[in-house]
Amino acid sequence: MQKALGIDIGGTKILYSVLDKDGNILSEIKKTSTPKTAEEIISVLKSIIKEHYNNIDVIGLSSAGAVNLENTMVLSSTPNLPAGYNSIDFSKLSDKKVFVENDANCAVWAEYKSGSAKGFNTVLMVTIGTGIGGGVVSDGKLFRGSTGNALEVGSLKIFADKRQKCTCGRYDCWESYASGTGLKNCAKTGALEYPEFCTSIYKDKNPEELTTYDITDGVEKNDAFCLRVFEQWQYYMFVGLVGLTDIFNPDCIVISGGMCGFVDIKKLEEKINSESVVTPVKVKLAETKNNAGMIGAGLLALQ
Amino acid sequence: MQKALGIDIGGTKILYSVLDKDGNILSEIKKTSTPKTAEEIISVLKSIIKEHYNNIDVIGLSSAGAVNLENTMVLSSTPNLPAGYNSIDFSKLSDKKVFVENDANCAVWAEYKSGSAKGFNTVLMVTIGTGIGGGVVSDGKLFRGSTGNALEVGSLKIFADKRQKCTCGRYDCWESYASGTGLKNCAKTGALEYPEFCTSIYKDKNPEELTTYDITDGVEKNDAFCLRVFEQWQYYMFVGLVGLTDIFNPDCIVISGGMCGFVDIKKLEEKINSESVVTPVKVKLAETKNNAGMIGAGLLALQ
Repeated sequence: MQKALGIDIGGTKILYSVLDKDGNILSEIKKTSTPKTAEEIISVLKSIIKEHYNNIDVIGLSSAGAVNLENTMVLSSTPNLPAGYNSIDFSKLSDKKVFVENDANCAVWAEYKSGSAKGFNTVLMVTIGTGIGGGVVSDGKLFRGSTGNALEVGSLKIFADKRQKCTCGRYDCWESYASGTGLKNCAKTGALEYPEFCTSIYKDKNPEELTTYDITDGVEKNDAFCLRVFEQWQYYMFVGLVGLTDIFNPDCIVISGGMCGFVDIKKLEEKINSESVVTPVKVKLAETKNNAGMIGAGLLALQ
Repeated sequence: MQKALGIDIGGTKILYSVLDKDGNILSEIKKTSTPKTAEEIISVLKSIIKEHYNNIDVIGLSSAGAVNLENTMVLSSTPNLPAGYNSIDFSKLSDKKVFVENDANCAVWAEYKSGSAKGFNTVLMVTIGTGIGGGVVSDGKLFRGSTGNALEVGSLKIFADKRQKCTCGRYDCWESYASGTGLKNCAKTGALEYPEFCTSIYKDKNPEELTTYDITDGVEKNDAFCLRVFEQWQYYMFVGLVGLTDIFNPDCIVISGGMCGFVDIKKLEEKINSESVVTPVKVKLAETKNNAGMIGAGLLALQ
């Protein structure tokens, strides 16, 4: 059976291991810090490939950014990776086939082939962390758009009256309401609007300084203000998800990312299906978690 | 060369003609009223097929509603077509191959194969009429979703605070702001909010009775109120389109429908490209117009 070396190039660390076409991990998952220059990244990747060279057929790389249609380079800007990163031709790293794909695309592929979306036809994956990212597989194919930029779902506007500025400089992006950063924004707005703030455990705190953690912690402590902020945040998340459901008609939505642990998945699924105009969808938590990029990259390279 | 009979089943009329695989229309385009019962629809379709039987290889049908994955039946409700319509197995109409597809999917296919989106990779078509419909082709394939329901773009919410009820019963659907009906809604809201209404040619009219036509006519007469309403309507249209651009990363957006003649396409393209986070897109008006469903259905049947 063919084997792939799956490598996930993150902003802080590079994660890698050998896997087969079912997504089984065949070697210890190793980690190394992401170097600070493009040259050093190339040299680290070459030594990782060398380490496993005799045991693999192909190499799959998961990376932030939009990847070209040949799956050899990352074209868009990648703020968490060094200058020059966008000039690397990854196909030259080895004489074996090297395949690079966007991390969100790798993640949805991993869930579709070996995670919680196995067996479904149209899978929408939404990653809710500091921002919001997405990926879609339908009929056995990644949806990449004309230049590999598709599924920038975090930029979807959920208000049309320029109500809240996003960190990206635009207004009313879904991720400025429904990501981890979004929860912080909901807290800030809520502190000024909700009477519950006056009796909250955070009533003496400057609303500007309320954190995502403050709210999730306050929810556990049953703080009425935090509960209301959290409910608003969940509504914002729902608004984007029901829109994406009507657009993609998925039979499975996979939720991942640092914020997904706080979401009541069963309730969310019910709410989406009661509002959406398309056939019902299953909502699931991701299974491949931190290994999603690495597994998806390896599996895509084996395609 | 193989020939198809393309038939567009509309709520009021059935349109049909013979075409080749390049979308060339080979027979006079004929029209007949849509009968009031499912049985009569079957009999009209059979007689249309009989008329052209010796001159065609396949039959393609365009219809409102969600079509099953076998492309033989319309499964979802179709309010403008008679009861029983959803039980018709169109494959039984003839011993030749009969292929039925959703009208929005047929339309985008027609534009992609023989209209203004010819040669593009990822085409988003948005039809702005009484409501808003959509279709996507990418990498030579229609995006249908898990059950053929995809691209219900009119249901995308562009506000997340339950501000305006849509005719569908839900809140804040894009089509309640940016369709023909949406322009009427913008006029009603604007009459209560904009000071320009007091000096408008419509100042003595009940805001509830303002029509879509009133506004487009007032724009031509340079009425300040109508201009402001129209600008707001265009902004709403833009908000949905830029979201869909970030989601699908199309290289071409085709706009069609009764309202598209009022839109400044060049300006819209500039505005989308200045706001979107993906690579630039071309925005074009549809070429196949009223024949889109008929042509697309025929071309899909020939695939």
